[in-house]
Amino acid sequence: MVDQPLWEHIGSSFVSHYYHMFDNDRSQLGSIYIDASCLTWEGQQFQGKRAIVEKLTSLPFTKIAHSITAQDHQPTPDCCILSMVVGQLKADDDPIMGFHQSFILKNINDAWVCTNDMFRLAIHNFG
Amino acid sequence: MVDQPLWEHIGSSFVSHYYHMFDNDRSQLGSIYIDASCLTWEGQQFQGKRAIVEKLTSLPFTKIAHSITAQDHQPTPDCCILSMVVGQLKADDDPIMGFHQSFILKNINDAWVCTNDMFRLAIHNFG
Repeated sequence: MVDQPLWEHIGSSFVSHYYHMFDNDRSQLGSIYIDASCLTWEGQQFQGKRAIVEKLTSLPFTKIAHSITAQDHQPTPDCCILSMVVGQLKADDDPIMGFHQSFILKNINDAWVCTNDMFRLAIHNFG
Repeated sequence: MVDQPLWEHIGSSFVSHYYHMFDNDRSQLGSIYIDASCLTWEGQQFQGKRAIVEKLTSLPFTKIAHSITAQDHQPTPDCCILSMVVGQLKADDDPIMGFHQSFILKNINDAWVCTNDMFRLAIHNFG
């Protein structure tokens, strides 16, 4: 065993599982959400497993690969885990883009599910 | 009143208050944390109001200005608010850099405090 707090272990396992599923078959991502889960994707809001999976599977690319630059995990006062990921992605033949994503993980009936998910591309308005 | 969910209103008020204090007098930021609060700053972990303020006030710049590109807010199952900010900052005479920050806000004794705070510069390892 590595000397790693439990929330780091759970958070990093989740992150690895999430992007593996996202890159290989994102229709499977329903397994990590519940009906109370919220997703904000580039400012658009979705609630519930079905609406979230519908959004994720309808994203307009066929191939995607995520590469994680940094990830942080913290326990929350309500026994959840907050995870923040900074990384890069390549969708189809588009240029590589930076992204950031935050998750809250909660233990429900002995399984860790994602109750909150926020995603943004790292695109800044210089103006 | 604008037609805005309560969590959006609380989250965006907090974000505006936080960066205003950060840019003007970050020694005042103790007011938003509690002793259970966690900060992860560029991967370094701090817990408690005192340790967090000590870190923030010892950051090696005298002038800083944040500019927010995008912010998202969601309610969590435990009646907290998750906020994610994407923005740019300029510290002293350094070049402008991208950053991302995530907060969890919790209502304790009728006040919203920050229990979780994660900050990362948008620096990627191209390799």
